[in-house]
Amino acid sequence: QIFPYLADRFHLTCEEPDIETVVNMADFIFTALPHKVPQKLIPAFLDNGKKVVDLSADFRFDEAWVYENWYEKHSCPHLLKTAVYGLPEIYREKIKKAEIIANPGCYPTSVILGLAPLLKEDIIDTGRIIIDSASAISGAGREPSPNNLFCEVSENFKAYGIGTHRHTPEIEQEISKLRGKKVVVTFTPHLIPINRGILSTIYTEYRGNFEEKDVYNLYKNFYKDEKFIRVMPQGKYPDTIQVRGSNYCDLGITLNKKTNKIIILSAIDNLVKGAAGQAIQNMNLMLGLSEDEGLKNLPLCP
Amino acid sequence: QIFPYLADRFHLTCEEPDIETVVNMADFIFTALPHKVPQKLIPAFLDNGKKVVDLSADFRFDEAWVYENWYEKHSCPHLLKTAVYGLPEIYREKIKKAEIIANPGCYPTSVILGLAPLLKEDIIDTGRIIIDSASAISGAGREPSPNNLFCEVSENFKAYGIGTHRHTPEIEQEISKLRGKKVVVTFTPHLIPINRGILSTIYTEYRGNFEEKDVYNLYKNFYKDEKFIRVMPQGKYPDTIQVRGSNYCDLGITLNKKTNKIIILSAIDNLVKGAAGQAIQNMNLMLGLSEDEGLKNLPLCP
Amino acid sequence: QIFPYLADRFHLTCEEPDIETVVNMADFIFTALPHKVPQKLIPAFLDNGKKVVDLSADFRFDEAWVYENWYEKHSCPHLLKTAVYGLPEIYREKIKKAEIIANPGCYPTSVILGLAPLLKEDIIDTGRIIIDSASAISGAGREPSPNNLFCEVSENFKAYGIGTHRHTPEIEQEISKLRGKKVVVTFTPHLIPINRGILSTIYTEYRGNFEEKDVYNLYKNFYKDEKFIRVMPQGKYPDTIQVRGSNYCDLGITLNKKTNKIIILSAIDNLVKGAAGQAIQNMNLMLGLSEDEGLKNLPLCP
Amino acid sequence: QIFPYLADRFHLTCEEPDIETVVNMADFIFTALPHKVPQKLIPAFLDNGKKVVDLSADFRFDEAWVYENWYEKHSCPHLLKTAVYGLPEIYREKIKKAEIIANPGCYPTSVILGLAPLLKEDIIDTGRIIIDSASAISGAGREPSPNNLFCEVSENFKAYGIGTHRHTPEIEQEISKLRGKKVVVTFTPHLIPINRGILSTIYTEYRGNFEEKDVYNLYKNFYKDEKFIRVMPQGKYPDTIQVRGSNYCDLGITLNKKTNKIIILSAIDNLVKGAAGQAIQNMNLMLGLSEDEGLKNLPLCP
Repeated sequence: QIFPYLADRFHLTCEEPDIETVVNMADFIFTALPHKVPQKLIPAFLDNGKKVVDLSADFRFDEAWVYENWYEKHSCPHLLKTAVYGLPEIYREKIKKAEIIANPGCYPTSVILGLAPLLKEDIIDTGRIIIDSASAISGAGREPSPNNLFCEVSENFKAYGIGTHRHTPEIEQEISKLRGKKVVVTFTPHLIPINRGILSTIYTEYRGNFEEKDVYNLYKNFYKDEKFIRVMPQGKYPDTIQVRGSNYCDLGITLNKKTNKIIILSAIDNLVKGAAGQAIQNMNLMLGLSEDEGLKNLPLCP
Repeated sequence: QIFPYLADRFHLTCEEPDIETVVNMADFIFTALPHKVPQKLIPAFLDNGKKVVDLSADFRFDEAWVYENWYEKHSCPHLLKTAVYGLPEIYREKIKKAEIIANPGCYPTSVILGLAPLLKEDIIDTGRIIIDSASAISGAGREPSPNNLFCEVSENFKAYGIGTHRHTPEIEQEISKLRGKKVVVTFTPHLIPINRGILSTIYTEYRGNFEEKDVYNLYKNFYKDEKFIRVMPQGKYPDTIQVRGSNYCDLGITLNKKTNKIIILSAIDNLVKGAAGQAIQNMNLMLGLSEDEGLKNLPLCP
Repeated sequence: QIFPYLADRFHLTCEEPDIETVVNMADFIFTALPHKVPQKLIPAFLDNGKKVVDLSADFRFDEAWVYENWYEKHSCPHLLKTAVYGLPEIYREKIKKAEIIANPGCYPTSVILGLAPLLKEDIIDTGRIIIDSASAISGAGREPSPNNLFCEVSENFKAYGIGTHRHTPEIEQEISKLRGKKVVVTFTPHLIPINRGILSTIYTEYRGNFEEKDVYNLYKNFYKDEKFIRVMPQGKYPDTIQVRGSNYCDLGITLNKKTNKIIILSAIDNLVKGAAGQAIQNMNLMLGLSEDEGLKNLPLCP
Repeated sequence: QIFPYLADRFHLTCEEPDIETVVNMADFIFTALPHKVPQKLIPAFLDNGKKVVDLSADFRFDEAWVYENWYEKHSCPHLLKTAVYGLPEIYREKIKKAEIIANPGCYPTSVILGLAPLLKEDIIDTGRIIIDSASAISGAGREPSPNNLFCEVSENFKAYGIGTHRHTPEIEQEISKLRGKKVVVTFTPHLIPINRGILSTIYTEYRGNFEEKDVYNLYKNFYKDEKFIRVMPQGKYPDTIQVRGSNYCDLGITLNKKTNKIIILSAIDNLVKGAAGQAIQNMNLMLGLSEDEGLKNLPLCP
């Protein structure tokens, strides 16, 4: 009734999440709930021997105070040490052994995958990273509000939450770990009148003497074994529609000698690689399945 | 036939632009033609005592070599000194006396109006200006091409022309003049699936000690007598739909102490303040009319 | 704050609608309120000598029982006889003398204007009128609900309220009066992912022997003095975008001899000719102003 | 290069269609070419023992003169008798044995599937079928033209080709065969600003005494073994987005006693069930594979 597009294919009914029932029915658990709610359920799931991928922010932070600064009081901070940040391209080995995965936010997924090779190589000024991102409306969820009405959004483009978006500390935590020192970033999200997709345009200042080809090769090499990362040929940039409905992250590389900038373009489907698809990718790793099981469909374009 | 929406209101027919006919029919001339064509017509219009607003790039550059670097050979470079860059908020007095106006590009209009107060005050690092802009599809014109087909554009978002867009030298020329020294910028345009509108998100690093309130006051004061500039209250940012169909440029101001950034948001309708509306504003000034004559309609929202 | 696009142009603040204050401040009153509320306010406005245009359905029906069948109990049924149905092209003389106008629904406006010439001439089978209409989302109002969320609407097309839409009795009442006998219709509304616009495709079976040219001439003649009706040339059909933001109703005429059908296409902006614009047109008539005062702006296209 | 969304997944290159090469490389052949071209290639493919699904109109008509009336001269009319119209829900057994399949047009697919149960039962007035259809822009193909530019289409809705659309004779041929006598229809296509999807609203006048439940049961029963037809529960209607990206045809049933109408709503993805998906379904039948092989993916919604 809620999702008629699933008619004839799924026969599950929505029920109140009673722990005992869930534990008995499920081999593996995904929690896609408002922040704060998973904290209350997940300890019981773990106690019953279940593995969990949580799609909220509840277990994304290493330190409880960061969560508490940007969200609210945490009810099981000890689990933060157990939880693994579920970005397989960065933490694959840890994910395989994890009991609980904090599935990354949509913006952070696009940004961290875009920056990882540069940070590992230590070739950019980490004090001057600017991330200009734009997201589809579905990022705002299905709860009706004036901000996601068709007539407020359609034919419109705007920035929001400048300097205050909750994905900022998540990005900063992860890129700080990649670089091995504390990094802060400028992050500006925008809203695009589309259903699905995030494009992050990431501005960095490089140090040293590089050609665009070098950076391209760095990325090609860094991601050479990754099934879901497509580094585009030089001179080509990603479109959100080229990844729509798929678990791909498409990356475009540019270097501008005049202004000393490396600009990285990173596109994902916010509902797939930015949410449900990445959750499945994590489950596959945790269960020893093939990493792309259930994730083989092509982008739907247009 | 070409624009049925004008039925019953206009009875002009499209004809070949014969100079004598145009000169006899018109009191004032707008040239909205492909680059290179206006160069051939405008000298004759001027010789016949007509004033002209040209909407192409042909007369936007002070130096012929810049035009020739980014476009092609110029056939009347001497007129470049006569032409005035038609941004009334910056060059009002010169425009009043001009015979020929180079109507600014759409992106440059949004960017220069967004940066002018900061540049006049000399409070930002001019070596680190990053301009992330997004434009409606109408910026690409009405010539059918794979890039402006509905199915290529709808439900999509992408960057294009990174580091190579022809509006880059135009922006650099004008902000260099505002600052009084050579400035280069990082400029990245994007395509939004909307009909009208440009939003520029302009990242600058400030020098000295400021509060957001100070910057807000600087903008309020700088534009206090301007009919078409609306500086939004602190904490509010412009939407493209709030200016659609109008000659407004809406500006939003943010300052982030953690990253030392002033971020300016600037929204215009690319077809009005970014083209035809600004052309009329220029004509009004050149003819001594009220500056908002013919430009009083409200934005159409939604 | 609610409509930032009006910044610098309007300085009215939203207040509770206290009758005394409204009567003292206003020369003329528009009521744009949920059904049932206007019934409670309008009698007091009339008692204070004010003229009113009501944009709800409260005064659209000649008979209280029809209103009560489709809406709910009516609290001042005696005023139904006083109120005039505000479609100026049909009831201009009555509107000029009216104290209270029931501003027509958006779908009925497009349909009645599309059918009036055929009904006056008595050349179609009134038992077989099929109206297939499609409306922009703004017709659903600004109250957030799952039905007007961007992600439910965008990239989608669907029918709704088949056989049960409340505009059905309004259409039937008015076309019955035009024909002089009781007429029932098949009316199917659809939702288009656009902000503004209604297109009604009206199927009728004609009686007798006609050429398309005859029907075209009938329409041209019927609407020859109307400022807001544009009968399109034969072979051309209206687009919603050609009337967007304007008070125009564009009509297209086709006749198919093989199937004995006259098909009428009728396009309006649901928020202008279908609501606020028509309300102003009615006010102009009631106050003896020029009928197009405040309604002269061109469609915004694209 | 042409479809970057396929990067890393397909490594075929586009080549000139040389018959010998195609015959050597391919086990089975799909021809998706402009009308008239397949006629020249397919005879050679058949001579080489290949089976073919043709996506053009070249082999859809039983009689050459119909094709020649609506398209142009046919170069191999004898093959029209061999070709089978590829609508599996109607012609499954013939398709299994066919050498050449004429894959149906997108509108006809939605319409014929919507009407088949009513026609088989002989309960409607076949002289009064009205088909009001609306299609996504992708139906117009990828050739740039003013009609499929974003700015001409977005925020717009219009009818086109009224009484002249080439899918009219295709619909008439097939429903005439279903009913066993010559039937003509009123068919009006519209353009929706979406990428994918067709919704047909089909108006019929019924004879006899029926309840909506009877018609619903007729459809449920008629399509009870079909994997790709979903008859929606009474009171629910199909949305185009609910079938997007899938091979489903969703059908909604309504009966209105007041006006004696059965109205059928039929939704498909014009690029899948209306084109490529149905072609694969036909191939599966021709090769003895499971009918849904390669067609199991869910709709992508939103």
